[in-house]
Amino acid sequence: MRVLGEQELRDIAAGSAVLGTGGGGDPYLGTLVAVRAFQQYGPLKLVTADELDDEAMVVYPFVIGSPVPLIEKFPLGKEMVQAYETLNRFLHGRVQAVMPIEIGGINSMVPFFIAARLGIPVVDGDCMGRAYPEVQLVTLTMYGIGASPFAIADERGNSVVLHTVDNFWAERFARSVAVDMGAICAGAAYPVTGKQVKEAAVLGSISYTERIGRAIREANAAKQDAIAAIVEVTNGVVIFRGKIVDVQRRTSRGWALGEAVLEGMEADAGSQMVVRFQNENLVAIRDGEIVASVPDLITIMDAESGQAITTEHLRYGFRVVVLGIPCDPKWRTPAGIALGGPRHFRYDIDYVPLERRFGRSGQRAGVRGEAGASPSPRAGR
Amino acid sequence: MRVLGEQELRDIAAGSAVLGTGGGGDPYLGTLVAVRAFQQYGPLKLVTADELDDEAMVVYPFVIGSPVPLIEKFPLGKEMVQAYETLNRFLHGRVQAVMPIEIGGINSMVPFFIAARLGIPVVDGDCMGRAYPEVQLVTLTMYGIGASPFAIADERGNSVVLHTVDNFWAERFARSVAVDMGAICAGAAYPVTGKQVKEAAVLGSISYTERIGRAIREANAAKQDAIAAIVEVTNGVVIFRGKIVDVQRRTSRGWALGEAVLEGMEADAGSQMVVRFQNENLVAIRDGEIVASVPDLITIMDAESGQAITTEHLRYGFRVVVLGIPCDPKWRTPAGIALGGPRHFRYDIDYVPLERRFGRSGQRAGVRGEAGASPSPRAGR
Repeated sequence: MRVLGEQELRDIAAGSAVLGTGGGGDPYLGTLVAVRAFQQYGPLKLVTADELDDEAMVVYPFVIGSPVPLIEKFPLGKEMVQAYETLNRFLHGRVQAVMPIEIGGINSMVPFFIAARLGIPVVDGDCMGRAYPEVQLVTLTMYGIGASPFAIADERGNSVVLHTVDNFWAERFARSVAVDMGAICAGAAYPVTGKQVKEAAVLGSISYTERIGRAIREANAAKQDAIAAIVEVTNGVVIFRGKIVDVQRRTSRGWALGEAVLEGMEADAGSQMVVRFQNENLVAIRDGEIVASVPDLITIMDAESGQAITTEHLRYGFRVVVLGIPCDPKWRTPAGIALGGPRHFRYDIDYVPLERRFGRSGQRAGVRGEAGASPSPRAGR
Repeated sequence: MRVLGEQELRDIAAGSAVLGTGGGGDPYLGTLVAVRAFQQYGPLKLVTADELDDEAMVVYPFVIGSPVPLIEKFPLGKEMVQAYETLNRFLHGRVQAVMPIEIGGINSMVPFFIAARLGIPVVDGDCMGRAYPEVQLVTLTMYGIGASPFAIADERGNSVVLHTVDNFWAERFARSVAVDMGAICAGAAYPVTGKQVKEAAVLGSISYTERIGRAIREANAAKQDAIAAIVEVTNGVVIFRGKIVDVQRRTSRGWALGEAVLEGMEADAGSQMVVRFQNENLVAIRDGEIVASVPDLITIMDAESGQAITTEHLRYGFRVVVLGIPCDPKWRTPAGIALGGPRHFRYDIDYVPLERRFGRSGQRAGVRGEAGASPSPRAGR
């Protein structure tokens, strides 16, 4: 168990935005959530999965919907607690810890808000090791773990509980309800045991984001290259440097869909890159060829500060770096690629790991990945 | 308590189609549901509201969605039981009786199916005295009674439970989930006490449909005028006789929306009538002027047999009679007109009771209405 103060929470929020691959919500709002939780409730407890009893019950509180209206509708608060409590009531009050469903500006921090308020710990890990735009896109799905019961709540006091035959149906209903609720709302789902967390989640990803956030902060303080510091910590690769010359974005079915077009600079002068997104960045296309894709992480960062830019904040004229970061090994299994790979998002290409294309080692420095663990290929329950 | 046999159930199904005002599902399917329930479980029990304890818990099982896919997806069964049981679990197994939410080809009969299967009685009444296309359009809403908890289930095994701040939100979420489930699914909602049934429901409407159905059957057997027999029982008025010359119908948000155009015959020769519907018939427009509207009932019937024709079965060339039937007195209060009157459906006209326009007495022969009871004007809870 580790106690986190304000600095650690700020680092986690900043690092989360990098792994959020453009989605997961505004990192500034995430920082606000974390700092508010700290100021109101004091230091927050982070535990490792090893510290969980096998029988402990853990749930995932999160925000679901498009990040665009989140900016207007923030702060969330009451509805997060309501979603959590609706789920916990279903589980007869047995929830002992919470965990982020994904790593992203907001959704990394939401569990800290709930945990601080209820005096329970956050488990160091998540279910993606990144952010993804659909609720079935979690490593838990590869292990046949269901999202149900799945509680959803809005700021008016409405709540909905789903029991679905698989996690694809959970996504479908949750998306419709989120749209009805104003395109953004609070969710709590995927009740799991400590044993299931140890087997099926992505472990250590909160600490990983903290290391990334600290590296950015220290580089900026020392006036050093923040991008280089991120590359070092994440074993990432700079896949493009350029200027944003066009952004198309629309909100549909509760997602921010679109693309950013970049004109190359420095070594990439004369080339063009298009980054397509569905809340999160899905593919990076260089001069017509896909050079990086899900499940690997594609993050667009401010070229100077190394701050990640979420899809809703992309603007014409920004000078940016596109960074590729290897995904968690669970996503590189056949089950992982089938679930969250390019074909799921209708890109008819084979997934090529980032390092194979860009000549990296493929060793992942950050997350304590269990590369040998091969999930069973059941999709949902 | 009265025991109903196959003949009574067939009469109820036929009469329900008349009060279904074009919606509420295919009367043939409703008859199938009833007869199947009878054949499988024997005679069915019908109780009056007076026979209910004030504390008895009653719920409303129903089908929600567009009647068009119902034809393909029938028979329903498993999902109806699942919706009911999901709700009953929420209510700690305390449900003692069921009641139709509306009168219509299918939804009048669904409670008999559930009741027969579980060995509980059906209460003689409903919450509309007709059919309406939205779940908040029930007399219960006028009395501040909420739809929640509201259970929804599909044939795959998915279920959803809504807890909403008012019945308009219940409609919104239920509609979205119904669309996701294939535009039609099973619901169970509006848990009420016996005391609330006595005050806020439309009482006696099952017996009323039975009298209508029997009148049609006896008239046809005696080769007499079935339409005249219906007019007699319902205190209705024939507002048009003609031939269908055009039908427009589309399915949107889980509703069958559209209109039928009729060319006048006999006394109405030279005139045109347009009947607009949203699952149910909403307004009848004669030569450009609205001559009948919700909350009064507008039913299109086969001119020969007196069989009601639901909106999904309207076809070019049918010779029909358009019948107007006075609605339950609860709908004629200010709260009732605000909830289910023409302006709710975006017809910017004042509601004029059918009898005022067509010179009838305004006395209702059928349903035991409580004309003096003025519901409190709260809309939902």
